[in-house]
Amino acid sequence: MILQLVITMECDILVIGAGIFGLSSAFYLKTQNSGKRVVVIDRLGGPGQGNSAKSEGAFRNLFTSETNFLLADSTIDWFKHMEEDLGYHINLSYIGYLFLLSEEQYTGQRAAFDRIRGWGAEMRVLEREELEEMIPDLVTDFAEDEEAELLGLKPVDYGVLGRKCGSLDADALTRAYEEEFLKLGGEVSYGTEASRLILKPVEELEIPGEPFVWQDTHIAGAETSKGEIKAETTVIAAGAWSESLLDPIGFDSFMRPKKRQLFAFKDPRLDGLFKVEGLNDYGAMPLTVLPKASILFRPELSEGSIWLGCADNLGRRFKLEDDPKAEEDYYTNNVYHALVKYFPCFKDVRPMNMWADQYAINSFDEIPVVTSIPRMIYVGAGSGSGIMKCDAVARVAAALHGGEEEVELYGGRRFRVADLGIHKRRAERESLVI
Amino acid sequence: MILQLVITMECDILVIGAGIFGLSSAFYLKTQNSGKRVVVIDRLGGPGQGNSAKSEGAFRNLFTSETNFLLADSTIDWFKHMEEDLGYHINLSYIGYLFLLSEEQYTGQRAAFDRIRGWGAEMRVLEREELEEMIPDLVTDFAEDEEAELLGLKPVDYGVLGRKCGSLDADALTRAYEEEFLKLGGEVSYGTEASRLILKPVEELEIPGEPFVWQDTHIAGAETSKGEIKAETTVIAAGAWSESLLDPIGFDSFMRPKKRQLFAFKDPRLDGLFKVEGLNDYGAMPLTVLPKASILFRPELSEGSIWLGCADNLGRRFKLEDDPKAEEDYYTNNVYHALVKYFPCFKDVRPMNMWADQYAINSFDEIPVVTSIPRMIYVGAGSGSGIMKCDAVARVAAALHGGEEEVELYGGRRFRVADLGIHKRRAERESLVI
Repeated sequence: MILQLVITMECDILVIGAGIFGLSSAFYLKTQNSGKRVVVIDRLGGPGQGNSAKSEGAFRNLFTSETNFLLADSTIDWFKHMEEDLGYHINLSYIGYLFLLSEEQYTGQRAAFDRIRGWGAEMRVLEREELEEMIPDLVTDFAEDEEAELLGLKPVDYGVLGRKCGSLDADALTRAYEEEFLKLGGEVSYGTEASRLILKPVEELEIPGEPFVWQDTHIAGAETSKGEIKAETTVIAAGAWSESLLDPIGFDSFMRPKKRQLFAFKDPRLDGLFKVEGLNDYGAMPLTVLPKASILFRPELSEGSIWLGCADNLGRRFKLEDDPKAEEDYYTNNVYHALVKYFPCFKDVRPMNMWADQYAINSFDEIPVVTSIPRMIYVGAGSGSGIMKCDAVARVAAALHGGEEEVELYGGRRFRVADLGIHKRRAERESLVI
Repeated sequence: MILQLVITMECDILVIGAGIFGLSSAFYLKTQNSGKRVVVIDRLGGPGQGNSAKSEGAFRNLFTSETNFLLADSTIDWFKHMEEDLGYHINLSYIGYLFLLSEEQYTGQRAAFDRIRGWGAEMRVLEREELEEMIPDLVTDFAEDEEAELLGLKPVDYGVLGRKCGSLDADALTRAYEEEFLKLGGEVSYGTEASRLILKPVEELEIPGEPFVWQDTHIAGAETSKGEIKAETTVIAAGAWSESLLDPIGFDSFMRPKKRQLFAFKDPRLDGLFKVEGLNDYGAMPLTVLPKASILFRPELSEGSIWLGCADNLGRRFKLEDDPKAEEDYYTNNVYHALVKYFPCFKDVRPMNMWADQYAINSFDEIPVVTSIPRMIYVGAGSGSGIMKCDAVARVAAALHGGEEEVELYGGRRFRVADLGIHKRRAERESLVI
């Protein structure tokens, strides 16, 4: 005889996903509902273990949509507050964000850069000569290089340097939100996988077959690997995995998952990248985006290493993977060819470490989504820049839960909650996507 | 020894999908490129065999977004032209489209209806008493019916009747486009399944591993079950199946597939639905949408039957199915409960036939998508109302191919091509969704 033991737990707010969106949302939900039981669950063993902690850990306030600008700019202010006032060591380093651009690219984006400057973003435009002088390792011109021409590489004519940009420890950040959430009395349960959302009729008739199509329905919690969890509100913040919960109830997650790989290097031949004066206070390269293929790298100052990634768009499939892996060949026989032309110091340098995360890409406008159906809130579609917007996005999620139309972001700016929703979403497109 | 025979075919424009979007697009592409070789392929054995021919075959020009209104209104004019001038028997029946609404629903949609009327849509508002008089089979009020109250059914206080609405033979329509396309010298190849899009570098280097991330790429055709087909332009018009081609190249299809079921009835007890005076020229019920659960039915005049469907939203999963099937239980133990309250004539009447198709739902704005990447055009996301917009959507696709910014729809109205694209898409939301 097989006895099936069904354990049912009840809470007020169930947050599915202990990544950065889940834990930051849980923190603001608990802040605003201090007497309520808020529980975060995650299938993995700790905070941010899905994709958050595997991120490049970059932040920037340079976005061409005002929505993304506001989300990131206020979140970066909050990061500073976390480190300076709340005492969290999230390794906030204002190394800057340097877009290397050809003449054509710069001209094409110029109006957008002016708009961003108008919102108050600090930015510096550097010309080729300045760049060459500051960054001896950089090759800006391939006029003499037949091979580079064959590769179709664009020259570097300009650099646009964002100041309120840099890197942080995404793992520490996620843990900081968890700690703040726990301090308020929030609960987390790791190793708890949500297998299914529970869709129930608002008025239950106790007839087999419910919910029927003619019934109004709402989400009443989730079935998990540790039993059923009933909740007044269920928050889906499972990143790329959100679709496995939302597809079955027929609710669009407005994103597609895509693997992104990171390669870490530590080699004396790259020392020059840590000896660059004039671009930031660290005397190192900023986070640097090449003019071609969105290859980007940054110094990780804590370990003296370089972290490198590449935003491969067309050609890299959308597919949800449980444990995506980096492919060494992708670096050595692909990204490398172009990288070494711009930065010959990478010649023959092999990655010492590599890993992969997954972006949850909203190809429509590349702006996060915070939307709801009865008794469920979905926070997602970070599009690869969710961490740097997490604080604002989480406040919007808590405001949506509270039925507010506007929310105050950190620093005092007001934000319209529906701007991140679907039906009354602000009509903008983000074009500074990496 | 296994000999692998690779057959390569070349054409100028390859259209993947011989459904309504594929064949109508192929027709306008061939019209505008008469000297070019345009080839349509489909995995199935004939036109429209995927979802098009399984459709409810309804059309309406009542849409709350001006984009959808223009697409449908001009397409309906074209249907008339097809039947009256081109001599196709597509069984165009202006039976009308009757939305039955509660007071609350009517009030909520009133501004939208006024806007639609402003665009020129002919519409008539009927009050409860008129409806009761015209449609003896209809129950409008459940005040005395405890069971109906338990089901949470809404009363019928108003009817909004669209005039330029009705039904057609979707299969015949698809075949008509095919015939017109073939007349121009277009080619079709059935039983030809596209397995993969061919993504190539613009400048081929003939090095293993291409395309590399730093290369500009474009689509050069498709691998199919009958060999490789090289094309100058590849048009993806595979409806719900588009994602199986687009996900692997990392291009968003902006839709999720969802099964929709249809049930056909032929029974003397339903004869009253064919004896309704004053709503259309046929003395029959219009296509009728109930106030709850988007249950809808229409008379199929050619066979004296009733076709019934239901737009189950939350609770019906998003999932691509190769051959979706209707579930009898879905009618008898679900839709039926509510239907029989509004129309008791359905009591104990069983479906004589049932089938299912798949909607390709763009939950973002419920407006079709016509967009491109180099040498590829994607025409999709019909959201369940693609057939009634097919002619306009196909003209937009051909205009996009031709590099035009505007296109003339049938009847002379101008339409901005980018309105159906992604990056400069017109910001509207359709709210009259079934």
